[in-house]
Amino acid sequence: MYHHVKKLMYTVQVGTPDPRFGNMLLEQFGGANGELAAAMQYSIQGFNCEDPGCKDLLMDIGTEELSHLEVVGALIRMHLKPMKTDRVAAEADPLVAIAGGGGVSLVNSVGDAWTSDYLKITGDLAVDLRSNIAAEARAKIVYERLISFTDDKGSKQALQFLMTREITHMRAFTSALESMEKPPFSIGIIQPTPRLVDQYFNASTGKSDKNEKPGAEPWNHKSGLRLVNSETEGGEGLETTPYDPQPGTEVTSKMDSTPVGAFTGEQKHKPSTTKLKAG
Amino acid sequence: MYHHVKKLMYTVQVGTPDPRFGNMLLEQFGGANGELAAAMQYSIQGFNCEDPGCKDLLMDIGTEELSHLEVVGALIRMHLKPMKTDRVAAEADPLVAIAGGGGVSLVNSVGDAWTSDYLKITGDLAVDLRSNIAAEARAKIVYERLISFTDDKGSKQALQFLMTREITHMRAFTSALESMEKPPFSIGIIQPTPRLVDQYFNASTGKSDKNEKPGAEPWNHKSGLRLVNSETEGGEGLETTPYDPQPGTEVTSKMDSTPVGAFTGEQKHKPSTTKLKAG
Amino acid sequence: MYHHVKKLMYTVQVGTPDPRFGNMLLEQFGGANGELAAAMQYSIQGFNCEDPGCKDLLMDIGTEELSHLEVVGALIRMHLKPMKTDRVAAEADPLVAIAGGGGVSLVNSVGDAWTSDYLKITGDLAVDLRSNIAAEARAKIVYERLISFTDDKGSKQALQFLMTREITHMRAFTSALESMEKPPFSIGIIQPTPRLVDQYFNASTGKSDKNEKPGAEPWNHKSGLRLVNSETEGGEGLETTPYDPQPGTEVTSKMDSTPVGAFTGEQKHKPSTTKLKAG
Amino acid sequence: MYHHVKKLMYTVQVGTPDPRFGNMLLEQFGGANGELAAAMQYSIQGFNCEDPGCKDLLMDIGTEELSHLEVVGALIRMHLKPMKTDRVAAEADPLVAIAGGGGVSLVNSVGDAWTSDYLKITGDLAVDLRSNIAAEARAKIVYERLISFTDDKGSKQALQFLMTREITHMRAFTSALESMEKPPFSIGIIQPTPRLVDQYFNASTGKSDKNEKPGAEPWNHKSGLRLVNSETEGGEGLETTPYDPQPGTEVTSKMDSTPVGAFTGEQKHKPSTTKLKAG
Amino acid sequence: MYHHVKKLMYTVQVGTPDPRFGNMLLEQFGGANGELAAAMQYSIQGFNCEDPGCKDLLMDIGTEELSHLEVVGALIRMHLKPMKTDRVAAEADPLVAIAGGGGVSLVNSVGDAWTSDYLKITGDLAVDLRSNIAAEARAKIVYERLISFTDDKGSKQALQFLMTREITHMRAFTSALESMEKPPFSIGIIQPTPRLVDQYFNASTGKSDKNEKPGAEPWNHKSGLRLVNSETEGGEGLETTPYDPQPGTEVTSKMDSTPVGAFTGEQKHKPSTTKLKAG
Amino acid sequence: MYHHVKKLMYTVQVGTPDPRFGNMLLEQFGGANGELAAAMQYSIQGFNCEDPGCKDLLMDIGTEELSHLEVVGALIRMHLKPMKTDRVAAEADPLVAIAGGGGVSLVNSVGDAWTSDYLKITGDLAVDLRSNIAAEARAKIVYERLISFTDDKGSKQALQFLMTREITHMRAFTSALESMEKPPFSIGIIQPTPRLVDQYFNASTGKSDKNEKPGAEPWNHKSGLRLVNSETEGGEGLETTPYDPQPGTEVTSKMDSTPVGAFTGEQKHKPSTTKLKAG
Repeated sequence: MYHHVKKLMYTVQVGTPDPRFGNMLLEQFGGANGELAAAMQYSIQGFNCEDPGCKDLLMDIGTEELSHLEVVGALIRMHLKPMKTDRVAAEADPLVAIAGGGGVSLVNSVGDAWTSDYLKITGDLAVDLRSNIAAEARAKIVYERLISFTDDKGSKQALQFLMTREITHMRAFTSALESMEKPPFSIGIIQPTPRLVDQYFNASTGKSDKNEKPGAEPWNHKSGLRLVNSETEGGEGLETTPYDPQPGTEVTSKMDSTPVGAFTGEQKHKPSTTKLKAG
Repeated sequence: MYHHVKKLMYTVQVGTPDPRFGNMLLEQFGGANGELAAAMQYSIQGFNCEDPGCKDLLMDIGTEELSHLEVVGALIRMHLKPMKTDRVAAEADPLVAIAGGGGVSLVNSVGDAWTSDYLKITGDLAVDLRSNIAAEARAKIVYERLISFTDDKGSKQALQFLMTREITHMRAFTSALESMEKPPFSIGIIQPTPRLVDQYFNASTGKSDKNEKPGAEPWNHKSGLRLVNSETEGGEGLETTPYDPQPGTEVTSKMDSTPVGAFTGEQKHKPSTTKLKAG
Repeated sequence: MYHHVKKLMYTVQVGTPDPRFGNMLLEQFGGANGELAAAMQYSIQGFNCEDPGCKDLLMDIGTEELSHLEVVGALIRMHLKPMKTDRVAAEADPLVAIAGGGGVSLVNSVGDAWTSDYLKITGDLAVDLRSNIAAEARAKIVYERLISFTDDKGSKQALQFLMTREITHMRAFTSALESMEKPPFSIGIIQPTPRLVDQYFNASTGKSDKNEKPGAEPWNHKSGLRLVNSETEGGEGLETTPYDPQPGTEVTSKMDSTPVGAFTGEQKHKPSTTKLKAG
Repeated sequence: MYHHVKKLMYTVQVGTPDPRFGNMLLEQFGGANGELAAAMQYSIQGFNCEDPGCKDLLMDIGTEELSHLEVVGALIRMHLKPMKTDRVAAEADPLVAIAGGGGVSLVNSVGDAWTSDYLKITGDLAVDLRSNIAAEARAKIVYERLISFTDDKGSKQALQFLMTREITHMRAFTSALESMEKPPFSIGIIQPTPRLVDQYFNASTGKSDKNEKPGAEPWNHKSGLRLVNSETEGGEGLETTPYDPQPGTEVTSKMDSTPVGAFTGEQKHKPSTTKLKAG
Repeated sequence: MYHHVKKLMYTVQVGTPDPRFGNMLLEQFGGANGELAAAMQYSIQGFNCEDPGCKDLLMDIGTEELSHLEVVGALIRMHLKPMKTDRVAAEADPLVAIAGGGGVSLVNSVGDAWTSDYLKITGDLAVDLRSNIAAEARAKIVYERLISFTDDKGSKQALQFLMTREITHMRAFTSALESMEKPPFSIGIIQPTPRLVDQYFNASTGKSDKNEKPGAEPWNHKSGLRLVNSETEGGEGLETTPYDPQPGTEVTSKMDSTPVGAFTGEQKHKPSTTKLKAG
Repeated sequence: MYHHVKKLMYTVQVGTPDPRFGNMLLEQFGGANGELAAAMQYSIQGFNCEDPGCKDLLMDIGTEELSHLEVVGALIRMHLKPMKTDRVAAEADPLVAIAGGGGVSLVNSVGDAWTSDYLKITGDLAVDLRSNIAAEARAKIVYERLISFTDDKGSKQALQFLMTREITHMRAFTSALESMEKPPFSIGIIQPTPRLVDQYFNASTGKSDKNEKPGAEPWNHKSGLRLVNSETEGGEGLETTPYDPQPGTEVTSKMDSTPVGAFTGEQKHKPSTTKLKAG
């Protein structure tokens, strides 16, 4: 159950309204890496989560992002205000001015409607936490860029507050992932094919202007990966011997969700269309 | 420059075509975590990347994902084939059957058109690598689920091949991120606000059915975060003293892209609308 | 600021899970007339609202709809559960099963991503309240249809709870609209053109199979409208004498938002492109 | 069957073309509240309507909106014309200039493609008429804002013509809704739960800056609603005793459409997946 | 100006309603190649067309497609009817059943909202006519497939009527294109680069399973194109000597629209941002 | 299988970066008629194509378009560069500047995400080739317009290179279509209804300002079409006598794909829902 308190989590102050900056700020209101995207990604993951501790984490942060949505909305409204009466200001975002009456809407800086296509929700905790870490990193860098494009002191401070919280969340999600105590590249319940998993495929070849040396990058060594060239370039090519999946071979955590499809009995695999034809 | 070789990276074999499974497989062709999404995310990041080593990595893997798109497309086509002549099969995916003539299209398992809204591209290398690690984790789990929903040996093996490669890529991106030699939560050039960054906000409260203990989760301790309750619940609330952003305080890497907006001179901050009014 | 309490607003109970019904229920989770759409429409309107009483109303109901999102999400999850392990169940919604791991996502019953294009937010209170009344009516009828398509007692009762709340909200929005004390068709600050506003245009003509009598419907009389036929059919056609808009002629309310563009001084109307050419 | 007559419903005249204003006008051509949205919403509702009188109404107004689409398109084209040859003008809308050749397209003022997600069509007459009343109110306010952002006399007059018609339509839809002779909040065939339907839930609490008094607003009294506080705030909370839906209890009209699902026999409720498992 | 006549262009008759076929038919109502797409593509092109003869052609066919939309809508409604009361039928299209009340909506067979992204409108007559020819060919093949997936005599006949009209339109558009009397590959006002335009680039190489001979296809000879291999494969590569565009060199027609940007004076090319910086 | 070579197909050079022109150029990167759209349309058609010669053609051109995507991306990046540090430049495309860090993304000039709704893929070769011819014509005219809106010599030359290739591809697709040796309007396997197919319907009537003579256009004669007026205007109306489809009557080519649904046996036409009810 949700409650709303009539108080912003952070009080925003704006000197001179800057409609074009207000338009830019919409990225963090209704944009791909904005506050609604964060709130929804974590909250819906939380609705689906079966581990009580992680569910709490997801709901804590998902709810805080809703409060951020309200804060950044208040900041944007102050910057958009001149659009109500000033034709030049209105040109900064005609959708906001004409259709939205100069208020905030769930769109980004170029007026694209917010879409849940922005969200990454798989229902696998170890995967979702990685998506959340990446999401927080993206939100951080976007806030930083917005800070760089304004001189308004109050706006900068509000953005600094919001930016900081993304780092806090990134740390919390990272710590939760570590608490699962899984090996670094263990996802799901089926191990990757041996040998093939160690082959780094050199699909982009030739010398570029910058003269980089393919294969010489540190990750090709430290990561245990081995460079393999394409057969069309005289290399050995990737290992393509068929290999049967071995469910249950990957290391799991007690915090994992029920693996999808994994315990399905043989008879349930039959496609319904086959039955329909027989019917 | 791209070249195509008339040979699949992995030869696919299918026993009995299963149109509803073919429909499910479209998730990895034109879906949010599918091969086109991977190919485009890494390749466009590669186009934008200024570090030669990482550009090579991004182009290598982006190009390999294009080859995967072709492989999974070939697998799907075999499963969809009955849709050309069988009404019941056609019902499994009317869009594919009626509009697409029973062939593959850039849609997911429920016929949603592929959209670049699926992609996460910020132009900041340390951020983009995190997005790529998460993307590979998602692709892995989706392949694993598909494996679980079919009994066809050849399909399982093809999916195992593709699934394995995602783990390889996840390792390569992780290694590249490590090679940047940045502290774990260092993003961009502005440090988060001290103290505030350590406060974990307890936004979801009360006892749930499962009796979890908020604040007792390991990440609240190991991560250096400290639990803070809301003022409305008698807590101290988050630190909201205004704090000015300090550009240049965050640890950077020589592999970082040019920070956006960071070196902007004062006069360039002025919004154009102000000038327009004055003009 | 938002808070989450670890307790559903209504405890849901499900007898036998019915995955295809779970799929249908997604209409009210991530669909056009569903709970997120309601929550966002009212909350964003609330963020923008300048009348304190109406702002409170919008935030009250917007927040309650978030709690409904959580309730309907819990109900759906119970029905979707078999998708995790049963291939036939998974066919009911492959997107949910394969990409979403059998959990809820912000999509509708056919897997379309939720989009803010569903929302109606104009920033004009008298208009937004009408959009909300219509939105509640739509949500009510959709819940009713869902009730009709299941026999599960617990599901029916949960839907009855949610359905009832829509009528409550519809009453509250209607009462708020009435409290503005504006004439029935008064929108904004410019009156419509006299005479023309009373002409009902008969654009669809001829006798249909059902033999209806155009022009004889009650609304053409009670409403003060007068039937006008097209000139191409020998009628007088609509009044097209040019008429200048008269701002300030429409009846307003003290609860109205600042009219957009209305107090704009002459010089601000000049398009910026003209200035650019001169510059 | 449709016919087109080579004559605009209203002759548009433009003094000086203003490309940025032409761009703004696209809101009413291919925008969410624009003429195509209106034409399609009413016409498709008309296709589905079983009451002959209301079908005629919906087709009359739906067809008139198509004629408006043509009028507003002609107006926009005059304003966009400089985009064909002037780089600065082209910057006002690069999509229109580069991809569209300076002509009108079905996009809004920020270039979003028109989508039927804008439409509200439920197939329930009493609901659809409410959606139409709200749609007309939105279109009216958008036209009014456009009038405010131009000084061109001919453009203002054309917009006044179109704006007026929205009020006419709003009156016609309202009159049709009244002619159904249903009680004010009667939707569908199932009554809401007694008592619960009268409870107004106070989900947004605390004192805001503007010092509003929650619960004191007129609608909480006139509407017969009673304020209920959350249990987490010491209130009684909403009534959550399970209540079985009672189909056939709501007041209906002879103009209503066939209720969806309402007369479904018991055996048809069985989900097909159950049968499939048994098959 | 548009008029609607209360009579279908073709009277549809259906034997036994087939909800899953009704669902398939939605492809031609709200799908990518359906009747609304055709109606809008031609009508909007017509709004923009400056040649009176072609404008008439575009309005004739655009309007006829609106009448087709009505016919195919009537056909679909008959097939969808069981969705109102039958749970199994409703499963064929839950969006239509639950949200749409069993009526038609502007969606395709998998429930995707209609979008103007389907349309191809460039404002260049010779280009638009080619897009229309292709659109008619697509609509024809989709109707043919629908005919193949039903046994209902009346449905087949209605689809045959609609399918036939697409061929008629294809002929009309082709004839209009020929009447422009332009050379076969003359588009716009700038000729392609000599020599380079004759080089066919062999970007897909190697032997495929089917043993095709690259370069041996008839079009490489009859078309005047010459096969060029990539430099990376030892070929000469494409001609990349820089070549300046020569406006006015391509053969034009008196029916052509005003070329976009073509007569722009030098000073107008200056980007506005340059001016802004200087201002 | 795909390979990438670290060399652009055409080396791009830019004098002064022009961010607003960079923004316009995005039309050809992530726009509806841009290089990704072309690459994907032809490549996916190629994946589906059963004729080895045409498959090769589609893969050749699809792959070349990927190389173009890289070229135009490089050109755009040079023009966007000032967005990284200049606020005024950033206003030219806030999405690119703030969210994308000043790099290219798969969006068009107004920031719309690329969508596969742009693609036209039916799986019928004769249809798809027509769609490709039209697509190349569109891409040509868009490049030409971009050339007209810049004075930068290097940009013009790069665009001229890319523009030229579209004409080459248009010739190749046309030649492939001719090599199918089908009559001009032969699509699929079912002939249109005789007589009806020759009737040109005059749906747009009356005299327009430009005084065109309906029916007098050359295509109404040369094309073998005969003008028919509507019954509502005293004409004979279209031929609407029911006519049964005759599969196998249309002229086919040995290069045609398997006709969809065409050889379906009677029993397979039965809708699955009928079976479900009986089951």
